Amino acid sequence: MKKIILREDEMPTRWYNVIPDIPNGLEPPLDPETLQPVGPEKLAAVFPMGLLEQEMSQERFIDIPQEVLEIYKIWRPSPLVRAYKLEEALGTKAKIFFKNEGVSPVGSHKPNSAVPQAYYNKREGVKRLTTETGAGQWGSALSMAASRFGLECKVYMVRVSYDQKPYRKFIMQTFGAEVAASPSMDTRTGRAILARDPDTPGSLGIAISEALEDASAHDDTNYALGSVLNHVVLHQSITGLEAKKQMEIAGEYPDVIIGCCGGGSNFAGLMVPFIPDYLDGKKIEFIGYEPASCPSMTGGKLAYDSGDVAMMTPLLYMYTLGHDFVPPGIHAGGLRYHGMAPIVSALVRDGIVIPKAVHQMECFEAGILFAKTEGIIPAPETTHAIRGAIIEAMKDPKEPKTILFNFSGHGLIDMAAYDNYLNGKLSDYSYPQEQIDASLARLPKVG
Amino acid sequence: MKKIILREDEMPTRWYNVIPDIPNGLEPPLDPETLQPVGPEKLAAVFPMGLLEQEMSQERFIDIPQEVLEIYKIWRPSPLVRAYKLEEALGTKAKIFFKNEGVSPVGSHKPNSAVPQAYYNKREGVKRLTTETGAGQWGSALSMAASRFGLECKVYMVRVSYDQKPYRKFIMQTFGAEVAASPSMDTRTGRAILARDPDTPGSLGIAISEALEDASAHDDTNYALGSVLNHVVLHQSITGLEAKKQMEIAGEYPDVIIGCCGGGSNFAGLMVPFIPDYLDGKKIEFIGYEPASCPSMTGGKLAYDSGDVAMMTPLLYMYTLGHDFVPPGIHAGGLRYHGMAPIVSALVRDGIVIPKAVHQMECFEAGILFAKTEGIIPAPETTHAIRGAIIEAMKDPKEPKTILFNFSGHGLIDMAAYDNYLNGKLSDYSYPQEQIDASLARLPKVG
Repeated sequence: MKKIILREDEMPTRWYNVIPDIPNGLEPPLDPETLQPVGPEKLAAVFPMGLLEQEMSQERFIDIPQEVLEIYKIWRPSPLVRAYKLEEALGTKAKIFFKNEGVSPVGSHKPNSAVPQAYYNKREGVKRLTTETGAGQWGSALSMAASRFGLECKVYMVRVSYDQKPYRKFIMQTFGAEVAASPSMDTRTGRAILARDPDTPGSLGIAISEALEDASAHDDTNYALGSVLNHVVLHQSITGLEAKKQMEIAGEYPDVIIGCCGGGSNFAGLMVPFIPDYLDGKKIEFIGYEPASCPSMTGGKLAYDSGDVAMMTPLLYMYTLGHDFVPPGIHAGGLRYHGMAPIVSALVRDGIVIPKAVHQMECFEAGILFAKTEGIIPAPETTHAIRGAIIEAMKDPKEPKTILFNFSGHGLIDMAAYDNYLNGKLSDYSYPQEQIDASLARLPKVG
Repeated sequence: MKKIILREDEMPTRWYNVIPDIPNGLEPPLDPETLQPVGPEKLAAVFPMGLLEQEMSQERFIDIPQEVLEIYKIWRPSPLVRAYKLEEALGTKAKIFFKNEGVSPVGSHKPNSAVPQAYYNKREGVKRLTTETGAGQWGSALSMAASRFGLECKVYMVRVSYDQKPYRKFIMQTFGAEVAASPSMDTRTGRAILARDPDTPGSLGIAISEALEDASAHDDTNYALGSVLNHVVLHQSITGLEAKKQMEIAGEYPDVIIGCCGGGSNFAGLMVPFIPDYLDGKKIEFIGYEPASCPSMTGGKLAYDSGDVAMMTPLLYMYTLGHDFVPPGIHAGGLRYHGMAPIVSALVRDGIVIPKAVHQMECFEAGILFAKTEGIIPAPETTHAIRGAIIEAMKDPKEPKTILFNFSGHGLIDMAAYDNYLNGKLSDYSYPQEQIDASLARLPKVG
């Protein structure tokens, strides 16, 4: 069979929470002022209790609400596909499977968390959501989810993307969301930055600060984050739970599980449901591929750091390049984040996840090979996972190992990046370690 | 259930050919010079025999080659979805189902024919394919199919789309196709037109002429057409064959079957497999929705006409607005064609298909309602079918009738059209009948 599709009634009805299974546990988030563990009451200003409970839960399985399942069914269960033609082109004996999350209405895995986030906010009487978006994948997903629950949605979109990626903006607007180029005149933070630097291209850090300020300033408004946090990883676990069932139907078990890593949620979502088997002694390699130009796990440090430039978020214990690290403008916008999800970070610390870095040119080359063989153009972010799968398949092409990777999204709305690649406008970039060290030297002092 | 998905082994392995079931049959294509029925030997200059046999076949079922089935499995069988939330928003008792062809790698139904066309050409030793594309859906599909079979592909893309829809161009280039803005300096036709009018925006008619000239001039090259012809309708029948099985699983049977109509292939593909039931006495309404701005069936005439401006194609017996009719620049580029597939035309003549016309503003409104309720942004073309489904569902909202329409493609690569709509830059347009009559007066004189 080319692909394995579950019936709707075979779709998982519970998410898997890996927190109780992390060997050395998670460090708690800290209040940036007191440096004490931050309590739910403080976070409740911008998050609903339903999500905060999940953020801190020690339950292994959490029921997916019926209303969320109904919306998941628009595109879920998603296909598990065997990349026969890619294998053939590589001349490898490895079996390469991918979980195709590009089939969602906005073309990526992001709605897996956008839908439950909108649901819990709606259930608790919230009327409006704010968020930030870089490349626009998360903003599109939250706009779609908000429209389904009748919530207003305001997206602070990094100005350079706002100007260069109009299609993503139009998608959000078609779903009824308000989209502001960030920094904007709509927040104190935005106005202050524009006063200093009217021509700034913006950054994810600035956009997060604006979205948080907006949510804090309005009683009826909450904030939503598309990666990094534990509840996002929880929601994304549906991809791995489905993939486990599908691999079983295929009569295979993965030797290697691969994902691309920006904030870490798509990789974690696919991989965490296999952790219990690993802890039971099953031999599995979990490999997270991050861009060499923004190497939080392979070039950064495990430490407490803020999630945004303005240090408005709690301090998270994670692999980080420093909250004021400014990654270069590589086209995989979704991978340009200074930190890594605390769950993924803890699994790296515990020796379960192996982080590796790849350069963008080899990733685009892999993406085009994938398009020509498997017929689907991957998102620039996703090409990092494909490159990773090819590396694993070619280590020893005669070894019939089974590789599973997360196809986190299609590239149809990111074609300008391919155009730049095909026309020789891209090159590789490694951030000089001394500059990473300088940014790491500015980490908040904790303990 | 929200959606019904067939297993791969339930996918149809034969296409359905409606030609023997058309009550009053099809009129043969004519040679534009002799006005005699055109023989396969003349068409063999630009089409492979495998497709010409299908074009004229009287067999009801034709086996789908194994190689084609394998590629179909990248996205097929496609889902049949119940639009519960749309029904709820409308307050109708009608059950609305849609066949989601937007799940293909290029986001539309076009690969259903692009893949077999590439296959038969490859099998007969052809090395290179040429085609034209307007909005870019067909060019993307053929580029993908050609890359899978290792064929070169050259796409003549209407200049105005080439300039305004760069993403489609990048998709084709990523699959390895050569894309030329049409009119181009690469053909005699193109050079002559550019000499007269260097700033022409181009037209589908010009692009067809260029692609045909290129194919005729090269021994190793054939031409491919994405709609209108009988073999394209045959290939598209897989959507209706799947939908029939899926409706059966849902325990429903459609009272009304709807599609949007440009060249007619997506509508015909969904509807023709239901024709035998209709002929057996089953009550089904088949309604084709065309744009009021390009109304070949509702404003044109059933007559022999050419498929292109330069009159290089055989004369086809079809509803037409005249081969030199220039439709206004509405955003549903895929519906801007002067003629209608001979199969659909014959079914209109025989009183089986009912043609209706809708305006673009009501279609965009329907498309946005669909996006907000069902979560998926439709292609501008597809909004015509959605508008049609809504009209049928609201005729008598208390009547529990079952409506099935073809969701021919998603709109993620056509977001500029939504932006124009949301910003008040679009309006409705009806072509004045006297201008249609003037263009019809220039039809070739036959018999």
